[in-house]
Amino acid sequence: MQIDLNSDLGESFGAWRMGNDAAMLDIVSSANVACGFHAGDPAGILRTLKAAKARGVAVGAHVSYPDLQGFGRRNMDVASEDLIADVLYQISALAGMAATVGTAVRYVKPHGALYNTIASDERQARDVITAICKFNPELALVALAGSPLVGWARDAGLRVIAEAFADRAYTPQGTLVSRREPGAVLHDADEVAQRMLRLVREGTVVAIDGSVARVEAQSICVHGDSAGALEMARAVRGALERDGVKVSAFA
Amino acid sequence: MQIDLNSDLGESFGAWRMGNDAAMLDIVSSANVACGFHAGDPAGILRTLKAAKARGVAVGAHVSYPDLQGFGRRNMDVASEDLIADVLYQISALAGMAATVGTAVRYVKPHGALYNTIASDERQARDVITAICKFNPELALVALAGSPLVGWARDAGLRVIAEAFADRAYTPQGTLVSRREPGAVLHDADEVAQRMLRLVREGTVVAIDGSVARVEAQSICVHGDSAGALEMARAVRGALERDGVKVSAFA
Amino acid sequence: MQIDLNSDLGESFGAWRMGNDAAMLDIVSSANVACGFHAGDPAGILRTLKAAKARGVAVGAHVSYPDLQGFGRRNMDVASEDLIADVLYQISALAGMAATVGTAVRYVKPHGALYNTIASDERQARDVITAICKFNPELALVALAGSPLVGWARDAGLRVIAEAFADRAYTPQGTLVSRREPGAVLHDADEVAQRMLRLVREGTVVAIDGSVARVEAQSICVHGDSAGALEMARAVRGALERDGVKVSAFA
Amino acid sequence: MQIDLNSDLGESFGAWRMGNDAAMLDIVSSANVACGFHAGDPAGILRTLKAAKARGVAVGAHVSYPDLQGFGRRNMDVASEDLIADVLYQISALAGMAATVGTAVRYVKPHGALYNTIASDERQARDVITAICKFNPELALVALAGSPLVGWARDAGLRVIAEAFADRAYTPQGTLVSRREPGAVLHDADEVAQRMLRLVREGTVVAIDGSVARVEAQSICVHGDSAGALEMARAVRGALERDGVKVSAFA
Repeated sequence: MQIDLNSDLGESFGAWRMGNDAAMLDIVSSANVACGFHAGDPAGILRTLKAAKARGVAVGAHVSYPDLQGFGRRNMDVASEDLIADVLYQISALAGMAATVGTAVRYVKPHGALYNTIASDERQARDVITAICKFNPELALVALAGSPLVGWARDAGLRVIAEAFADRAYTPQGTLVSRREPGAVLHDADEVAQRMLRLVREGTVVAIDGSVARVEAQSICVHGDSAGALEMARAVRGALERDGVKVSAFA
Repeated sequence: MQIDLNSDLGESFGAWRMGNDAAMLDIVSSANVACGFHAGDPAGILRTLKAAKARGVAVGAHVSYPDLQGFGRRNMDVASEDLIADVLYQISALAGMAATVGTAVRYVKPHGALYNTIASDERQARDVITAICKFNPELALVALAGSPLVGWARDAGLRVIAEAFADRAYTPQGTLVSRREPGAVLHDADEVAQRMLRLVREGTVVAIDGSVARVEAQSICVHGDSAGALEMARAVRGALERDGVKVSAFA
Repeated sequence: MQIDLNSDLGESFGAWRMGNDAAMLDIVSSANVACGFHAGDPAGILRTLKAAKARGVAVGAHVSYPDLQGFGRRNMDVASEDLIADVLYQISALAGMAATVGTAVRYVKPHGALYNTIASDERQARDVITAICKFNPELALVALAGSPLVGWARDAGLRVIAEAFADRAYTPQGTLVSRREPGAVLHDADEVAQRMLRLVREGTVVAIDGSVARVEAQSICVHGDSAGALEMARAVRGALERDGVKVSAFA
Repeated sequence: MQIDLNSDLGESFGAWRMGNDAAMLDIVSSANVACGFHAGDPAGILRTLKAAKARGVAVGAHVSYPDLQGFGRRNMDVASEDLIADVLYQISALAGMAATVGTAVRYVKPHGALYNTIASDERQARDVITAICKFNPELALVALAGSPLVGWARDAGLRVIAEAFADRAYTPQGTLVSRREPGAVLHDADEVAQRMLRLVREGTVVAIDGSVARVEAQSICVHGDSAGALEMARAVRGALERDGVKVSAFA
């Protein structure tokens, strides 16, 4: 059995540090690298790409709305012509830089508000899909497991990597419990690790109401932006490996 | 005989228009396309690339310091790690977008203050050269004819396209008269056209003191940001073609 | 009888020009001056303030979402803490600069997407109202005539200047016909001028269906971003003055 | 005896944290608050202003070149019209926000590259002085002790607060040892505290060559961007207070 672990990296900007890229590159198999629109300046992006290459971690373009001040977390009503071009620009910038350090962009994972919006907003979803297809239809799209986006992207011929979130509670329907609900975010590293093991082994999670929900995922998203998050990511990887699950990027 | 005509294009930004790209694409053989750091947003860049492709005009990356407010015209003391990465990011973004519309970036021409600085500042010049070599050493560098940069870039193995400026006066040494000097900028379209014809035919211009200066250039820079500039650019192309000089991008 | 004419000014940015501020300052009695978030750099803002002062034109803060690339025309889901502070920052910057040239900010008119959103979105409307009250509750708010915002702001104790749009069609209910509908934007300068005269004299406009709609407005918004728009603005002012209506800023 | 302690605060931006404002507000008497050009977003600036007000810490405008990516640390050749307006805009924004929380901007301290440049570049120095005088000639300017700027600003009628840097070595002439020199930055908190006590008591420091240099300063700059820096700042305040020196903002 095999699963991919992905995390957001390269999110420092100028004099501001964020996350612990070095530590996370020892844990994950895929790095979602910021492209400069929500985070990441060129020199920092290049350092992240070099580090990912050195650790054999796969690279994806973590594309965003253009909103540094809001860290890409605010919905923006971007017109299709602009959204397609914004995504193309970001993938292009990252891909060109990746080639200079001997690696390559293998997938696209939208960030923050763009990620959430295209999970269910068909117009913006098709814009992102269009941009990927124009750039390189061989790139995979990392999308929220169970979301309409998965189907739209597959119908367009894209390879979709459905992802689960290690630290999030699920509804009985296999979708994420909203962050506004109590219990939406999980904090116990061991519990999370066991949940992810079950997800990989059985394709299920225990939902917030105690029922069993199906979640088909080829990648698990983990975080590294706090000591607790880092410990949880390590726990997930450790539990998977001890149980014989190989952590590696999707082929 | 053959010569390249180049101009700065794609310099609109968001709701703000600049220049007359459509008209200029009928005149020039090479388009220096803004990459987003001094001008150009992704959707506008993509439109410019499509238009250049449709007219058979070659595309270059018009890379800049990161300074939208100053239009890249202000000197910035950017550290080498940042400058190399900034240039790589811009070439990458443009090259990836160019590929999606069936064209390719063939050269790099730094913009504004970066252009002027690296003509004679060896540290920053080497940073730009390094970035180009890392991205693709087959790309040409468009550089000020007669400047130290020409030698530094050739020594590094880059192909250099030396350029002259149609509307500028020259010193007896074949360098540009500073814009702060009277007579530095020429305004008579016919005179300018005849000067450029001589430059192509003989490799010389009449300097500001009446002497004859050698200027070896493989490209001539023209502008399109005013009605007068556009007329001058047309006059230069017309004079060259009537005299049997072919206007085409360097091979 | 008296009416205010207002227009958006100071919307150039860096090397990019927009509008014809000099011409508009001869037509309007109130200048909505960009504050740097959708347009306007400090030096350009200062020039606009000086010019407005010289012509005796009143100054308002044309506050926006932080979105230069989108010119403030894209909806952004900005949290209350940020929106309040963003509006405060912009009013403050403009007010401080205005004082240095001997004038003062007398009102706030939100721009673009923020203007449209707060006309009916109560949460964001209250954020803008809160910011104005914190800065100076004596400032007026220019708001869309007939919108819920008018009531919310008045209930909060703010003076509201309801505004009509010279070049827009109205529904029988006295609200704007959406730009997506045919006939939403009017192009005949004389017709527009006569409509605005009726609006001032009678408080009514002929709606798009031919019925008569009540529109109570203390200010009329005109544009100056094209030759046609400028001509229309002049026609509106001319018709008003010939009929004895005084064009002047609200007291 | 009395001395002012100042530090840079409010330098977080969006999702990125920097420094420990809460801890520093217990140590310093004056807060140099970022104004959005090198750091600081409106909501963060407002929080910093409220916190400074709550602790009775004086507020200054920490104005900068417009360079978020470079954190205002890169020299920029900004024209006078732009520099004056940029400084005015920043002071205005901060002053207006400060008033809404019941405090006021009492001084201006340029940041980073602008601070270093105007210490000796007369043209840019005069631009900053002009901006302060236009906004409010009662504001003080915090300037590098011993620099030409001190004289230029005093000649212009500004009150100048000369400042020393707690963690820096001095030349025998009483100027800072360049950071590029070995020994330029001091790391021992107790040594630094004793040096500052001597500075306050005697107006002298032991220079890097062992000689005694005169440094007349009315304020001492301390940092809070690391655990070590915070400890040093506490040590300086502690040593001063134990010796009977009152730490308070200049009147």
